Amino acid sequence: MVTLKQIAEKLNISITTVSKALKDYPDVSKKTRKLVRETASMLHYKPNSFAVNLRTKESKTIGLIIPEIVHHFFSSVIKGIISQAEKKGYLVITLQSNESYELEKQQIELLLNKRVDGILISLANGTADYKHLSEIIENDTPLVMFDKIAKVVKCSKVIIDDRKAAYKATQHLIDIGCKRIAHFRGPLLPQNSIDRFLGYKQALLDNNISYDSSLVYLLNDMSFEEGKFYANQLLQDHKDVDGIFINTDLVAIGAITEFNKQGIKIPEQINIVGFSNWFMASVISPSLTTINQPGFDMGKKAFKILYKEIKDKKEKKSIVYRDEILETDLVLRESTKN
Amino acid sequence: MVTLKQIAEKLNISITTVSKALKDYPDVSKKTRKLVRETASMLHYKPNSFAVNLRTKESKTIGLIIPEIVHHFFSSVIKGIISQAEKKGYLVITLQSNESYELEKQQIELLLNKRVDGILISLANGTADYKHLSEIIENDTPLVMFDKIAKVVKCSKVIIDDRKAAYKATQHLIDIGCKRIAHFRGPLLPQNSIDRFLGYKQALLDNNISYDSSLVYLLNDMSFEEGKFYANQLLQDHKDVDGIFINTDLVAIGAITEFNKQGIKIPEQINIVGFSNWFMASVISPSLTTINQPGFDMGKKAFKILYKEIKDKKEKKSIVYRDEILETDLVLRESTKN
Repeated sequence: MVTLKQIAEKLNISITTVSKALKDYPDVSKKTRKLVRETASMLHYKPNSFAVNLRTKESKTIGLIIPEIVHHFFSSVIKGIISQAEKKGYLVITLQSNESYELEKQQIELLLNKRVDGILISLANGTADYKHLSEIIENDTPLVMFDKIAKVVKCSKVIIDDRKAAYKATQHLIDIGCKRIAHFRGPLLPQNSIDRFLGYKQALLDNNISYDSSLVYLLNDMSFEEGKFYANQLLQDHKDVDGIFINTDLVAIGAITEFNKQGIKIPEQINIVGFSNWFMASVISPSLTTINQPGFDMGKKAFKILYKEIKDKKEKKSIVYRDEILETDLVLRESTKN
Repeated sequence: MVTLKQIAEKLNISITTVSKALKDYPDVSKKTRKLVRETASMLHYKPNSFAVNLRTKESKTIGLIIPEIVHHFFSSVIKGIISQAEKKGYLVITLQSNESYELEKQQIELLLNKRVDGILISLANGTADYKHLSEIIENDTPLVMFDKIAKVVKCSKVIIDDRKAAYKATQHLIDIGCKRIAHFRGPLLPQNSIDRFLGYKQALLDNNISYDSSLVYLLNDMSFEEGKFYANQLLQDHKDVDGIFINTDLVAIGAITEFNKQGIKIPEQINIVGFSNWFMASVISPSLTTINQPGFDMGKKAFKILYKEIKDKKEKKSIVYRDEILETDLVLRESTKN
């Protein structure tokens, strides 16, 4: 490691002058500043980032906690966050909660101890208590939640209107003539699975279709396997179902796989709408009609808001929390009629 | 932020005693140590990690550079790395090179300036010069390469035997009776696309099938779209091809989509073998025979080796570079006969 002392000795000037020159202080002559910079570069001098952090009280890193990395939507979000952070000179530490509240809690503790400048989080399905999130705010660390959020926590949020999107998905099934529409819903806790369920229900009611709770299947881990399992279950429980709105594409793809295997014709016998627009949705056969959820943009937006809050905090401005709602659209494909 | 001073004042003891107590020094009485720890915990005291870094000369973070995050194989690798790092108390900063050499160079500079304790990298396709990698080693920062590596760089590497795996894939096509076998290969530079091509060629030669360079298509970005494009190109160029070994699953899935669209029967008319075993390979129709590439294990292994090298460096032991070669296997599915 090259030190300021070595540069000073090489140029036969004081360490203080070297230090000032590198910070571009005007009380060092232009000529000396130039000479010091050139020498530093030649010697591959790197400022000690630990000392810089200590002085500036900034780490120029942020923490990101997501439930699952190997997941098309979340990896798109990560990509959006990282691309934007890099532009602003921030590095991103990523942690995976595995949908576990306990792990999420520990990870927040870890990030706070690490003194990251801000935290981005999408909650685990298991998270029902928000004390660990309040701790971030009490610690005066900017926090932005995205996708799976807790409404009661006071911070900025980047979401889609899950209720509206689910309404749109269900309305499409009604518009193409479906009368008995099932819903594969997500777990009870995350706000987005509640909202998608409510959007489904509202669309039925607004179209004078009576809500039948036996048509709603509560999923646990939202996996491909669960999609297969509940598609089979549905065939046994309700022979008359002609449409399904499914909480996420991975589950919908599992369901399509099962229906294909059992010789059920999609969309002739059952119409299917998914949610998220995973890449896979466009390549499976039949391809999947779904709600396009803009992961990359969500990541970019979440970082932008966090960045502004970090800046505002530094400049001792008061932080104004924002709810940013991104637009979604219905992508029509082969799994629904027309 | 709670300081040591506040703890000291509260207990009416010296700051030095508090500091020693928190570090569990035996010259502070057991009783005092316990009291200090309890008080620190009650006041939510967090050590200043910047000062700790400066003292220990460690950041307890590592850097990870990969070409692309939204990619089943690489996101599996990230997951493997993060899961293992967390166990050992390390945080992971992830950067995406976008297959760009320039970006990769800048990112390494950034990570070295940040003083990460070690770097894990899978090279961009555009990387032909390795000076930026040598700089990591000259900087005395442990480096482990995985998947897309540079053979000439002196560091530990975690790879699969791409040549052997490609040989196995091609041999399978020969074993089921294919006589004219095409290859969609990756770009010229990355070692893994060279090795997969060489494995393909060797299998042909060992089976007395003459090598025809017009059957080898050089791909650029290895995308779904390229798979569709070259599937169509192949149909125009060579009507007699009965098997294809494709460098990666995403491209193979593009090819299957195009063949399906044009009414070409798989495997009756063309047998296809992919590489990597993306999740999608199991759900597309027909499902894809492919080489299973263990991404999660590769990530875990790469971190384990890096961790050992960080530890050895700290203990001033000499570092012995290792080449770790992970096993692959051929997963038989519907896209090849039998």
